[in-house]
Amino acid sequence: MAEPEAKRVKTEYELIYWPGIPGRGEVVRLLFEEAGVGYIDTAKADKAAPTVLSYMAAKNLGDDKNPAVFAPPVLKHGDLVINQLPNILLYVAPKLGLAPASGDAVYHLNAIALTILDGFLVEVHETHHPIATDKYYEDQKDEAKLRAKAFREERLPKYLTYAQRLLDGEKSGEGGWLYGGELTYVDLVLFQCLDGTQFAFPRTVEKLRKGGKFDGVFKLYDAVKERPNIKAYLESDRRIEYADGIWRHYPELEEDEE
Amino acid sequence: MAEPEAKRVKTEYELIYWPGIPGRGEVVRLLFEEAGVGYIDTAKADKAAPTVLSYMAAKNLGDDKNPAVFAPPVLKHGDLVINQLPNILLYVAPKLGLAPASGDAVYHLNAIALTILDGFLVEVHETHHPIATDKYYEDQKDEAKLRAKAFREERLPKYLTYAQRLLDGEKSGEGGWLYGGELTYVDLVLFQCLDGTQFAFPRTVEKLRKGGKFDGVFKLYDAVKERPNIKAYLESDRRIEYADGIWRHYPELEEDEE
Repeated sequence: MAEPEAKRVKTEYELIYWPGIPGRGEVVRLLFEEAGVGYIDTAKADKAAPTVLSYMAAKNLGDDKNPAVFAPPVLKHGDLVINQLPNILLYVAPKLGLAPASGDAVYHLNAIALTILDGFLVEVHETHHPIATDKYYEDQKDEAKLRAKAFREERLPKYLTYAQRLLDGEKSGEGGWLYGGELTYVDLVLFQCLDGTQFAFPRTVEKLRKGGKFDGVFKLYDAVKERPNIKAYLESDRRIEYADGIWRHYPELEEDEE
Repeated sequence: MAEPEAKRVKTEYELIYWPGIPGRGEVVRLLFEEAGVGYIDTAKADKAAPTVLSYMAAKNLGDDKNPAVFAPPVLKHGDLVINQLPNILLYVAPKLGLAPASGDAVYHLNAIALTILDGFLVEVHETHHPIATDKYYEDQKDEAKLRAKAFREERLPKYLTYAQRLLDGEKSGEGGWLYGGELTYVDLVLFQCLDGTQFAFPRTVEKLRKGGKFDGVFKLYDAVKERPNIKAYLESDRRIEYADGIWRHYPELEEDEE
């Protein structure tokens, strides 16, 4: 039984993202899935790629209510059209009960989200594309090896140390969440970003897990994975498998076996 | 005549940033300067670097009201301590009259700020550090040449095209500003980021200016530069000269003279 079109348009979230990869869109999906809120996912509809490209087109100058967007993910909600992943999270999280709508927590959580995305998403993409986003990995493989080494040895531990610092500083709850003693969207951000990083660098992440310095971080990862809605989602065919997106697995970028 | 300490602490903004480079802190400074609002700038005080490092220290777990921060810039305002440049801008801009405090514009402006910072700040830093942030430029010079070429030829025009698209889509004013027909903080972000990019790649930016495809962008740049408070600031000794920060000039990373 379909809802009346006018109502549906006003109330439903629409995620516009590339098909075939989890990518940045996956972080947005996890918020909807945890909250149990329905959403339209153009990545799984007809003309998925053309839909994305229509938003990015030079001649697309936005509309009366919205400026042009630069790149996906794009979120449509009623008349509003916004892009930039951390910005979409900032907008939807309070509406989904995954963040307070006002006060200092808004800025604390936004800072944490931005930092996790810098470390476990943007910098992971750089490991396989250190020279040019627009060129093939194969054309920058030598440089990728160097960048990946620096990521595995310096950057990844640095960001994990920060996440663990947040957990060590959390006095407000026993839940093991990053902020305020209860689950918020930044826990979902960390889960997805660490999951992707683990896909890309399984040996490195396994070693860091066993090292014992980041127990709180991996406990949080495991706890998110077991949340009923997330668990059901991960087991469903809505969850897209990793492929040639942000989080890629190239064995030659991994550390050597011991 | 000094204000009573208690009042001063509650009302004054304190920017914590590295000394000796404009860097990310400079974007925050421009907002205060345009608004004519006083602020404490630890970059210009004694122990500037140790102050930054004390926030980043592994043992610094934040305080009762704030989680740990990852990296500067850090903003203190009363009891609040936050980091991440786009997050600081999001927080201060409405308080300084440089953005609406609520509504769709918050998310439109945040997306624009994030995109400009990605293109003209983060990606410029990558041009001289494509392999490892923690290593010297001299140790990644060959890769830097490749990355800088891709930036000059692909990425910079792409982001300029987006900024021009925003201006072309702006129907609400003749002011030539990016959003809503009047100056907002994203215009200041674009000014600073383009100014830094011009310092790093003067020949490339001059050529793009003369090319005529981005007239609106350069008009905006010139207009910000002439605003009375900004002009006075740029001529003052509070403006820090470019050095070995995000926006660096290495002649070998520039395009060849024609």
